[in-house]
Amino acid sequence: MNKDIDILISEVGPRDGLQNTKVFMSTEYKKKWISAAAAAGLREIEVCSFVPPKLIPQMADAAEVVAHALTIPGLNVAALAPNFRGAQGAMEAGVQKLTLTISVSKAHSLANVRMTPDEAIASAKKICEFRDSLPKDKRPVIESGLSTVFGCTLEGAVSEDEVVRMAVASVEAGCDEVGLADTTGYANPEQIRRVFKKVRAAIGDRLSGAHLHNTRGLGLANVVAALEVGVTTFDSSLGGLGGCPFAPGASGNIVTEDLVFMLESMGLRTGINMEKLLAMRSILEEGIPGEPLYGYVPLAGVTKGFVPATPQQ
Amino acid sequence: MNKDIDILISEVGPRDGLQNTKVFMSTEYKKKWISAAAAAGLREIEVCSFVPPKLIPQMADAAEVVAHALTIPGLNVAALAPNFRGAQGAMEAGVQKLTLTISVSKAHSLANVRMTPDEAIASAKKICEFRDSLPKDKRPVIESGLSTVFGCTLEGAVSEDEVVRMAVASVEAGCDEVGLADTTGYANPEQIRRVFKKVRAAIGDRLSGAHLHNTRGLGLANVVAALEVGVTTFDSSLGGLGGCPFAPGASGNIVTEDLVFMLESMGLRTGINMEKLLAMRSILEEGIPGEPLYGYVPLAGVTKGFVPATPQQ
Repeated sequence: MNKDIDILISEVGPRDGLQNTKVFMSTEYKKKWISAAAAAGLREIEVCSFVPPKLIPQMADAAEVVAHALTIPGLNVAALAPNFRGAQGAMEAGVQKLTLTISVSKAHSLANVRMTPDEAIASAKKICEFRDSLPKDKRPVIESGLSTVFGCTLEGAVSEDEVVRMAVASVEAGCDEVGLADTTGYANPEQIRRVFKKVRAAIGDRLSGAHLHNTRGLGLANVVAALEVGVTTFDSSLGGLGGCPFAPGASGNIVTEDLVFMLESMGLRTGINMEKLLAMRSILEEGIPGEPLYGYVPLAGVTKGFVPATPQQ
Repeated sequence: MNKDIDILISEVGPRDGLQNTKVFMSTEYKKKWISAAAAAGLREIEVCSFVPPKLIPQMADAAEVVAHALTIPGLNVAALAPNFRGAQGAMEAGVQKLTLTISVSKAHSLANVRMTPDEAIASAKKICEFRDSLPKDKRPVIESGLSTVFGCTLEGAVSEDEVVRMAVASVEAGCDEVGLADTTGYANPEQIRRVFKKVRAAIGDRLSGAHLHNTRGLGLANVVAALEVGVTTFDSSLGGLGGCPFAPGASGNIVTEDLVFMLESMGLRTGINMEKLLAMRSILEEGIPGEPLYGYVPLAGVTKGFVPATPQQ
């Protein structure tokens, strides 16, 4: 991580946020969003997923969006892929970080990517081998994004031993990093501390970040717990967009605005300019009109006399 | 604290929640709410405030509400008073715990109770002396509810030395307990840890609970931080009612339903039955129709296979 920030926020809105919206965001607005996010100080953006346009039409312009993001100096351009074909497309497009979704829950894995968790690991191995066959400057960092780590809507509780096994298998398959995702909003702070510790004991610094959801309102509480056990990378999305909210008012992803406000208030530098970040919501309001946006700080404003940890420019 | 619970939830909805509602809740529904809360396992309820009905008409039935609450076995009946007259009324009504609001911010104190913080301490001393003049079985526990501890909408930052001084002064005035309130939703987890530690260093076990707001979405994150530094009593309100939300969607008090779900998921016993707690929202929907209610767990439901720490009866 750069020495001028304490916490890396990975903005996943353009990928996770847009895949379920009713209204499609135009390529123009996606580019606008990504540029504004980078200008606000975000260092990493998951800009799209490489999936069949038939399944998620919103991602049909993935390659064009990546091409735009790659023109922004200093930005780490990330994308997601569920399988070999998607991964190949992402690498052809030139992404710098590639996240593979690998579900720890068998039922979820079968429903989501029609592979068992072990088959998904085998696929990750093939993807990593393909990556290693590319010229050095074309090889993205590959993250195993373990999903349903803290519980599954189909299976309920997920075995922590199985989480550790899948993390180790991911590294053995060639993944550079392993992130842990609370896909379903099941995690609680105690569990966060326990599971991150267990996985770190098994794979050390290969453990990268936390992808947390706010489905049951525990998103930022879980961030506090993750900070305690040394997690320094967090996914979030502008306006809390995405993350499969399944009830009105029940948001999905943790909200970038609230997360950044909390971290900066705690004295942790994110490198992000709070004012520019809050101003970005208008891009969503215009680009996907009518979509529900979440977040408290955008409504209440920052506190009087707020002094962020990041020097504001 | 009873040995069968780890955390005491003090439900403040009937007081803090109702003082700003547009629709008045009838005395009948207040009684219904209090009875249902006790039946769901809540051990302490702040049932009303003793304030001039001219200022807060919703509290005109305070004495009747207290009388009802006192009939419920095992319930600790709490009320709030801003001044001597109110405190006298509360003691006449027979409350078992009396919280005095004492603001650390001078500007807030003057605006709220037309006394400086030091004058409010002098008033607390008179109230404690009056309490001590009563027969032993008529003497409530008196809590100094320090407000604007973590920041003030009028003054901005609040001095932590001043918070400590006011906590010490509260104890010297005769208060049995001192609670710390984030009246304005300004607190962050780092500050929570720091301030609670400082106050505990000064007054030890006289430090009672945390009254946290969710104005900027950090309510449960602050609970996690408070738990770390040994806080075991939390105020919250059903449906997040009250706590001066000043923007649509920006809730005030932390939501009892979400708080209990989080604590129980973490293995901390609250003594509360989750199903009965969630069912109670219908009392608010009927008793104050149209009032916005908050909370995520009521929308998303508990997790599949949820095993609460409290044995559910």
